[in-house]
Amino acid sequence: MRFVEIIEKKRNGLTLNESEIKYFVDAVVNETVPDYQISSFLMAVYFKGMDADETALLTKYMMYSGEVVDLSAIEGIKVDKHSTGGVGDKTTLALTAMVAACGAKVAKMSGRGLGHTGGTLDKLESIKNFECYISNEQFSKQVNEIGLAVIGQSLNMVPADKKLYALRDVTATVDSIPLIASSIMSKKLASGSDAILLDVKYGEGAFMHDVESAEQLANAMIAIGKKLNKNIKAVVSNMNQPLGNTIGNALEVKEAIETLQGKGPQDFKELCVELGSIMLLQSNVASSKEEAVDMLENAIASGSALQKLKQLVDWQKGDVACIENPEVLPKSKYVVAIKTQKTGYVHDLKALELGVLAMKLGAGRQTKEESIDHSVGIVLNKKVGDFVEQDQLLAEIHTNSELSEEWLKQFYSCFIIEDAYISKPKLIEKIIE
Amino acid sequence: MRFVEIIEKKRNGLTLNESEIKYFVDAVVNETVPDYQISSFLMAVYFKGMDADETALLTKYMMYSGEVVDLSAIEGIKVDKHSTGGVGDKTTLALTAMVAACGAKVAKMSGRGLGHTGGTLDKLESIKNFECYISNEQFSKQVNEIGLAVIGQSLNMVPADKKLYALRDVTATVDSIPLIASSIMSKKLASGSDAILLDVKYGEGAFMHDVESAEQLANAMIAIGKKLNKNIKAVVSNMNQPLGNTIGNALEVKEAIETLQGKGPQDFKELCVELGSIMLLQSNVASSKEEAVDMLENAIASGSALQKLKQLVDWQKGDVACIENPEVLPKSKYVVAIKTQKTGYVHDLKALELGVLAMKLGAGRQTKEESIDHSVGIVLNKKVGDFVEQDQLLAEIHTNSELSEEWLKQFYSCFIIEDAYISKPKLIEKIIE
Repeated sequence: MRFVEIIEKKRNGLTLNESEIKYFVDAVVNETVPDYQISSFLMAVYFKGMDADETALLTKYMMYSGEVVDLSAIEGIKVDKHSTGGVGDKTTLALTAMVAACGAKVAKMSGRGLGHTGGTLDKLESIKNFECYISNEQFSKQVNEIGLAVIGQSLNMVPADKKLYALRDVTATVDSIPLIASSIMSKKLASGSDAILLDVKYGEGAFMHDVESAEQLANAMIAIGKKLNKNIKAVVSNMNQPLGNTIGNALEVKEAIETLQGKGPQDFKELCVELGSIMLLQSNVASSKEEAVDMLENAIASGSALQKLKQLVDWQKGDVACIENPEVLPKSKYVVAIKTQKTGYVHDLKALELGVLAMKLGAGRQTKEESIDHSVGIVLNKKVGDFVEQDQLLAEIHTNSELSEEWLKQFYSCFIIEDAYISKPKLIEKIIE
Repeated sequence: MRFVEIIEKKRNGLTLNESEIKYFVDAVVNETVPDYQISSFLMAVYFKGMDADETALLTKYMMYSGEVVDLSAIEGIKVDKHSTGGVGDKTTLALTAMVAACGAKVAKMSGRGLGHTGGTLDKLESIKNFECYISNEQFSKQVNEIGLAVIGQSLNMVPADKKLYALRDVTATVDSIPLIASSIMSKKLASGSDAILLDVKYGEGAFMHDVESAEQLANAMIAIGKKLNKNIKAVVSNMNQPLGNTIGNALEVKEAIETLQGKGPQDFKELCVELGSIMLLQSNVASSKEEAVDMLENAIASGSALQKLKQLVDWQKGDVACIENPEVLPKSKYVVAIKTQKTGYVHDLKALELGVLAMKLGAGRQTKEESIDHSVGIVLNKKVGDFVEQDQLLAEIHTNSELSEEWLKQFYSCFIIEDAYISKPKLIEKIIE
């Protein structure tokens, strides 16, 4: 087989067969085909796409390009959740504790933040001594015993994706639904769960900018699941403004704890209950949506969900005092109150820009190598649809350094305040099963 | 400027500006951008094309990426001809002598054959001691004195094309009109002539398989000429069957000589007169088509064209005895007569396959490094539209080795003979000015 013929076939819009897709993935992993051929192939895929069979085969061979986690030592249905990423997205912290408290088995592998999006591992590491990396045996044991573990992905998983993503990033071939879908799904499937719920974000602060493309991506990933016999469901949710009221690692942990105490922001709680109810159905823990919602509300009201988070932290060597009393979490030197200069309704609250501003405070990293500051971030006092009067508090900035004029100017420009009334936006656009 | 942004711009179908195109060509030549970015850019161009301005700018910067020949020492209008390549295309050998005999100045740079297509330099080297490489001063002097020189391109010309072509060849990005047009035109324009006539071949044995795409290519090249103030004209001609009756280096030289003696095959002579008349008009040597055709017919009838070929060979140190008596040209050990097994009209005579079969005899090369055998080749006794009776001579094979059964089987399969009458095909499809 000559790789140039595979490029030509895709360029001409033809469907690749299994051996051609296997050849491609092998070539990427073993470096038997030069990068300049891989990248022209990727551009041909950008223009000509891949059908459901091709995308599923690509996902399968990418998944098997490295370590595939065997969770068979864990009894019952293992359920996982994946968000395509956004700003203020601390969902894993609260949601997994809620569903595990209801009896689901959650064996979750998470990632780190990059650019304007945060990462669950970084947030968890705000908790003193929390260990993100444990052995596979320990992982299985923990999920069997307490129903929940949240750990970092092994470095040996899906090497094909690491290489492809690095190449796509510099060749303008990132924005391709089959390539995005296979990248996400190969990693999720390699982490071994039986059922996966995808939270596909759309909007200014998300990878997919509109509902339609988010829905296309969700459908592509569900199709992969069908072909590979996995139970995949998806929701499409709004990421035009940040999720909840906090951006920044310790601040988000605190907000997740408050949510499990029944004191969280309404939008974030709504998302956790909606996602959780689907996961409980996927796990066969609940038999109807209503039952699932009741179970989740009870887990909050009874304190069992918060207890589950404490148990998770305890098992992974973290300081449970941080959960019992969030004031123990890392704190910034300064808290700067930002007041509004205008009266009106908040029409827009730019998620992407706020994510970048939080990153600039030190809450995120521009490149993979940078370290982060767990204590800093942004607390939003007003969100889209809220009415605000001149001199009222818009937000509090938790920072360890002075805020430059440029930073403040950019921060103010993230709030679009108008006279006209506007209702609160819909958070969950669609549930795709 | 980040190259990934240029890739993205082209991928999105936008028009690149002059500085972006210059950046691209500089990056190719200086290797400041990795090949994997160049190749994904080329694939984006394959899908999104380039407009006339972009293509002309690309051609200009490619041309200036290396040595540009200065022919200003040659008085008057310098005219050149370029064929996009085919099988049995010995046009340069006869045509340039004809137009130079009429008074045009022909400063021609030619190439070598590869795969099924032959090259003028290889054909000229059938003539004992013929020197294809002479100094630029010698080149100018010769054209000034005798109106004609045919030499090999300097190795320092258009390095951007050499690199791009090598990459396109292995990334399925060869078949792109703006990339083909800029590749051809950058080389022709770098060789310094004022006026260029393009012979764009279409058909089974040509790069462009149908009239429409050949015409598109011709129009793209004429548009480049207009933008860069060069006088470019084009003909679109048929390459479904080989041109003339011979394929192979010494055999083609002999056929060119016979044509200048007024004894050449009708199709080949027709093409030479048609192309020659346009070149005489481009050079202002003739003022009407009729006058130009008369001059060319006279150049053959009077022997002045043959005399011009002899003069060319003499000036470039070749053995003029080869022209005076073509029997002196290299000869193969064997001549195998191929007779038909069928009676009927020749409906098809597959140029590509015949080119490959001649290459297998040794007349051409599969890779650039191979040497060739000037003596071998194919003489066709029947062409499309000819009637042939069983046991009549179809062709003679000039070979230095045994013909395998496989070779003979393939040779017979090149002749499609049917009962129904068929007229001779039109050779020149279109003249584009």
